[in-house]
Amino acid sequence: MLKLYYVPGTCALASHIALVEAGAPHTVERLDFKTNQQNSPEYLKINPKGRVPTLVTDRGVLTETPSILAYIAQTFPQAKLAPLDDAFEFARVQAFNSYLCSTVHVNHAHKGRGYRWATQETSFADMKAMVSKTMAASFGLIERDMLKGPWVMGDSYTVCDPYLYTLTLWLDGDGVDIATLPKVKAHRAAMEQRPAVQKVLAEQKA
Amino acid sequence: MLKLYYVPGTCALASHIALVEAGAPHTVERLDFKTNQQNSPEYLKINPKGRVPTLVTDRGVLTETPSILAYIAQTFPQAKLAPLDDAFEFARVQAFNSYLCSTVHVNHAHKGRGYRWATQETSFADMKAMVSKTMAASFGLIERDMLKGPWVMGDSYTVCDPYLYTLTLWLDGDGVDIATLPKVKAHRAAMEQRPAVQKVLAEQKA
Repeated sequence: MLKLYYVPGTCALASHIALVEAGAPHTVERLDFKTNQQNSPEYLKINPKGRVPTLVTDRGVLTETPSILAYIAQTFPQAKLAPLDDAFEFARVQAFNSYLCSTVHVNHAHKGRGYRWATQETSFADMKAMVSKTMAASFGLIERDMLKGPWVMGDSYTVCDPYLYTLTLWLDGDGVDIATLPKVKAHRAAMEQRPAVQKVLAEQKA
Repeated sequence: MLKLYYVPGTCALASHIALVEAGAPHTVERLDFKTNQQNSPEYLKINPKGRVPTLVTDRGVLTETPSILAYIAQTFPQAKLAPLDDAFEFARVQAFNSYLCSTVHVNHAHKGRGYRWATQETSFADMKAMVSKTMAASFGLIERDMLKGPWVMGDSYTVCDPYLYTLTLWLDGDGVDIATLPKVKAHRAAMEQRPAVQKVLAEQKA
């Protein structure tokens, strides 16, 4: 049985949706950032990075969203969540998710987590002020060059889709108007029609 | 035939080493950051992100180091550069590379590329001053929890190894003394004994 540790509002949503889309038997455990539970001794034993998501498997622990998403796709192949038999197309899925992880999520993190990379309040304010620009630039690239439509990889729904959806939920708070991104907007709307997405959103809100 | 675009001193070194380790027929093309060649109209047509590495294949273009490394491992399976038949172990390779890409490389980038996330010189100085601390923290985690030794995944050399090696080359400039990281130091020394690494370093310096 798989177990996913998550915090509502974080990128762990992508893995949570993917588990449900895959039909993977799993449990979830919610952590609370307000009590710094992700840095508790108990949790750090499971994931020494002190971050979410963490996926506990019978074989051991996995971290990092792109890795967890690829693992879910590979271990539940009947769900067809990635082009597993085509190394080039699989690499394109990986490249998309890697961009979300290392560029888009990092841009977003400069709004509220500037302390990861600086120490001064003035720097935090400077970083925060730039987030709408960096997020607009990243999503502009996604809109123009990366999101084929209706799903990220075209006609086939893949693990790129819950990950993109998760990050689009941050756009409002990051000062980017999704109306300027028609393909991204249509993608978000299509995601919200999916039973798996509705189920997970309800569970995380409960 | 594969073609890799690279700039010396960048993370593209990892993909370059992996191509040689895989015995993959390939050519390389060096770009020059000084003339901003990565943002030239010609290059942006190939990779609209304006970054390296870019791997051009017969099927199309791949970007993002973790994706390129997994692609090389999957398309040259005889080189045994990843545990391709074990989804859990493959995911661990992906998780390691994703951490390097989205956390360690990002930490390093705050030394010289603060303009990606801020606008003020004071912010850049603040970010730069913290890089030795963030890189030491990331490499401390790698030393303690992630690098099994002698190679990242243990006895088997994988695509994690050239990527880790590439980022260890930045430690000196980032103010981290590799002598404080004995396993990382031994890994770097072992990498420099490999003919593929020696060949690529010589080619990139030529």
